[in-house]
Amino acid sequence: MLSVLNHLYSPGAVKGRCSVSLPMASVLLTFSLRHNLRLVASGCRYVSKTAPKTLSEFEYDAPSMKTPVPGPKSQELKKQLGEIQNVGAINFFCNYEESRGNYLVDADGNRMLDLYTQISSVPIGYNHPALMKAVTNPNNLSAFVNRPALGILPPENFPEKLIETLLSVAPSGMTRLQTMACGSCSNENAFKSMFIWYRVSVLACSYVCLFKQAPGCPDLSILSFMGGFHGRTLGCLATTHSKVIHKLDIPSLDWPIAPFPRLQYPLEEFARENSQEEARCLEEVEDLIVKWRQKGKPVAGVVVEPIQAEGGDNHASSDFFIKLRNIARKHGCAFHADEVQTGGGATGKFWAHEHWGTDDPADIVSFSKKMLSGGYYHTDELQPDKGYRIFNTWMGDPSKNLFLSEVLNIIRRENLLEEVTRSGKALLQGLYELQTQYPHLLSRARGQGTFCAIDARDDVTRDNLLLKTRDKGVLLGGCGERSIRFRPALVFKEHHAHQFLNIFNDVLAEYK
Amino acid sequence: MLSVLNHLYSPGAVKGRCSVSLPMASVLLTFSLRHNLRLVASGCRYVSKTAPKTLSEFEYDAPSMKTPVPGPKSQELKKQLGEIQNVGAINFFCNYEESRGNYLVDADGNRMLDLYTQISSVPIGYNHPALMKAVTNPNNLSAFVNRPALGILPPENFPEKLIETLLSVAPSGMTRLQTMACGSCSNENAFKSMFIWYRVSVLACSYVCLFKQAPGCPDLSILSFMGGFHGRTLGCLATTHSKVIHKLDIPSLDWPIAPFPRLQYPLEEFARENSQEEARCLEEVEDLIVKWRQKGKPVAGVVVEPIQAEGGDNHASSDFFIKLRNIARKHGCAFHADEVQTGGGATGKFWAHEHWGTDDPADIVSFSKKMLSGGYYHTDELQPDKGYRIFNTWMGDPSKNLFLSEVLNIIRRENLLEEVTRSGKALLQGLYELQTQYPHLLSRARGQGTFCAIDARDDVTRDNLLLKTRDKGVLLGGCGERSIRFRPALVFKEHHAHQFLNIFNDVLAEYK
Repeated sequence: MLSVLNHLYSPGAVKGRCSVSLPMASVLLTFSLRHNLRLVASGCRYVSKTAPKTLSEFEYDAPSMKTPVPGPKSQELKKQLGEIQNVGAINFFCNYEESRGNYLVDADGNRMLDLYTQISSVPIGYNHPALMKAVTNPNNLSAFVNRPALGILPPENFPEKLIETLLSVAPSGMTRLQTMACGSCSNENAFKSMFIWYRVSVLACSYVCLFKQAPGCPDLSILSFMGGFHGRTLGCLATTHSKVIHKLDIPSLDWPIAPFPRLQYPLEEFARENSQEEARCLEEVEDLIVKWRQKGKPVAGVVVEPIQAEGGDNHASSDFFIKLRNIARKHGCAFHADEVQTGGGATGKFWAHEHWGTDDPADIVSFSKKMLSGGYYHTDELQPDKGYRIFNTWMGDPSKNLFLSEVLNIIRRENLLEEVTRSGKALLQGLYELQTQYPHLLSRARGQGTFCAIDARDDVTRDNLLLKTRDKGVLLGGCGERSIRFRPALVFKEHHAHQFLNIFNDVLAEYK
Repeated sequence: MLSVLNHLYSPGAVKGRCSVSLPMASVLLTFSLRHNLRLVASGCRYVSKTAPKTLSEFEYDAPSMKTPVPGPKSQELKKQLGEIQNVGAINFFCNYEESRGNYLVDADGNRMLDLYTQISSVPIGYNHPALMKAVTNPNNLSAFVNRPALGILPPENFPEKLIETLLSVAPSGMTRLQTMACGSCSNENAFKSMFIWYRVSVLACSYVCLFKQAPGCPDLSILSFMGGFHGRTLGCLATTHSKVIHKLDIPSLDWPIAPFPRLQYPLEEFARENSQEEARCLEEVEDLIVKWRQKGKPVAGVVVEPIQAEGGDNHASSDFFIKLRNIARKHGCAFHADEVQTGGGATGKFWAHEHWGTDDPADIVSFSKKMLSGGYYHTDELQPDKGYRIFNTWMGDPSKNLFLSEVLNIIRRENLLEEVTRSGKALLQGLYELQTQYPHLLSRARGQGTFCAIDARDDVTRDNLLLKTRDKGVLLGGCGERSIRFRPALVFKEHHAHQFLNIFNDVLAEYK
């Protein structure tokens, strides 16, 4: 059925994509619209008649599968890479040159609609023309070639670029910013900032007696949540509690772990039960803070994801987060919102914590992934008192900020946050309908923007559904015990949602 | 005296450097050779008559200072950046576009001979034509624009590129490789690999009784050395003991810290004393391993730098490292050589551990900085048994490997390791002569290749010398309590050494 388009859109046919002329693009557009109409017309599949389609001239229009995934070429490459490193987590090998927009092309020429986007880290799709232009712009050459030690010798345009990019999307109340290279480094250094702040601001007054040695490495702690994920370096890992495999055999720190609310979905239907569950968890948080202070390991900071991602897309209400932030403040703990996965627009707001509706959401907000390099914002109070306290060789990478600048332009110009809200609604509505249609397979559809998830019956079913859906041309990720997570790029549109829902419906219908 | 050349080499004059025609380049070459001869001819300064000069057509020929450093523009920018983050460690702001080869140009148009190279992380100088070509090569475009999650969806050329780049310089006995984004992540994950290996290979047999909980986070430890530096994330920081400011207020782990030999220089003159000092430290290492095992926190790995860099350029003999490696093996601990700063050629060998002259130097070797992205090599035994045990979102950055590929080509084509050995000899010989000439100011000159250092009388003198030398056009770094460290790029030649020695001699002669 896709043969005509397959031919036109085959990797070979679009190789010279940068030089595709407009008339050619309109031919493609005509074909794809026709193709889309044909899809809508086909009777038995899950299709919403309301889906309009705006086609970027650079994007493919549908998945195209040639082999099961991983195909023979990916399998051969996996064998080769297996001689060099553990390949237990490798899905398949990719042809990034041929990938475009929402479609990832693999080494065997399979083209998949990508709803996982490199673990939620591709903001505006593959090979976006604006990003390609940023690389070929001669003014940017030096930023790619000369990586500075930002903490001692920043480029002269560094303050200006920070203001233009990262600070232009700073969370409410935060004027300070530290760039870092990745999510783990961001969280590790955010923790350090909280320890330094705590020692100066709180400890000096109240708990100095607890620490015999001065100066020293006090037994401070970070409170985190069951199901939370904040990275895998040793400090981060002490706050990560999503899967056993992450922590097994690695020494940890004796830091408090609070229960995260286990809510029932849809949230509106279980408001009372959920509110009770949240109250229980908040009470436990407060108990733990007191207990750890009593045992001489005061809690310097509380770290939480606005939506627990890796741990299973666990949501909590705005009320929960606001109360949590107040408990932290009451006990003199800093409050750290880890937006490494939730930040950058996928929830329909630039930061997920904006959904809380407060002007004072946190003391520190860390980011990475869709922001293309890591870092964290913080309030004035959390600024370390001296240089070299928060420091490493590179402290980020200005060449990634060049890309972020383009990403932010595209988000604004194309109103991508609104688009995400619109396509997210279509996706979630479709998931609701599918769980109604297949109650023995699916439950607990939930989400904000396109940051959605749904649970399978059990982990085996979930893993099977992921593989079967992939073989039909949609790449998804799992999270938690039995959840499927949706992490498309911000250029994911309603018609992509329907494309996925069609395919997923087919998989579910065939599922034994 | 530099006025004619200043004019010719002013930032404005060379702005269109990519399009500088060859005839223009030869004019510059003629002028600069003449200029160089003039420098050599001037009588009173420290000058070796034997220094030949090979001038890259892209490099400046001498420092050119317009203002004290930081100049007014840098100071203004520092004020601006101070509104965003702590700027206590900022030296000055740079004009990377105008920097070339060994010369760093600052925001005020000062051009300095750079012997610090972004904390030892610029392998072949600023704006090397080969690296600029790598950015503009259309075949590389996709690697810059599409950053993959390497652990699950690597690009199809990933195994080939690893073989061509990182594995082509793999340490002896190591066929396995894990890429990471930075030095801290490399060491954090190297530690995790040692913990996982230890638990599987050693602990399962001998110490299982120590751990009540299974699966769990056992109280394993890493043995490190006083004066060692392995990064600043919480796991790394527990093994870092170079300066108090790094660790102050940050909780740590109860891991053993051994004394690192405090040798007397020149090493040849104090062979007997140094050998005794090394024996003392090795004995202490063995005692600590036994002690920590007895207290239920067995040492899974020993981590050491081949030359302690941040801690003060502390050397030890090959004999020390070979014996240390044997002690680790005897007690079932993995042996980790941290080559983040020493690796990549600056010692005159690609890896500093090659100076030990053994085929079996370590179980794990980590790198970053001059290698442009992080990672570590290891033996087959240290490969984790499952996927996702060593994992994060990006696990490195293939676009940095593209640059590394060019760097390795240049190192080979231009015999840069030999050049480093040659220019390092000139540098060290000059330092020996200066410490003879100024014994009240300088002592303990030491080094391998260009990885050299010299001690000042005290920390105040050291800091003063750094600033005065910088104002005369040479950028240096400090390390340890009162050492000056030399970390030029691999394109640092004998004539650069003499240029520095001339200037440093002037500073010392004027020093009150």
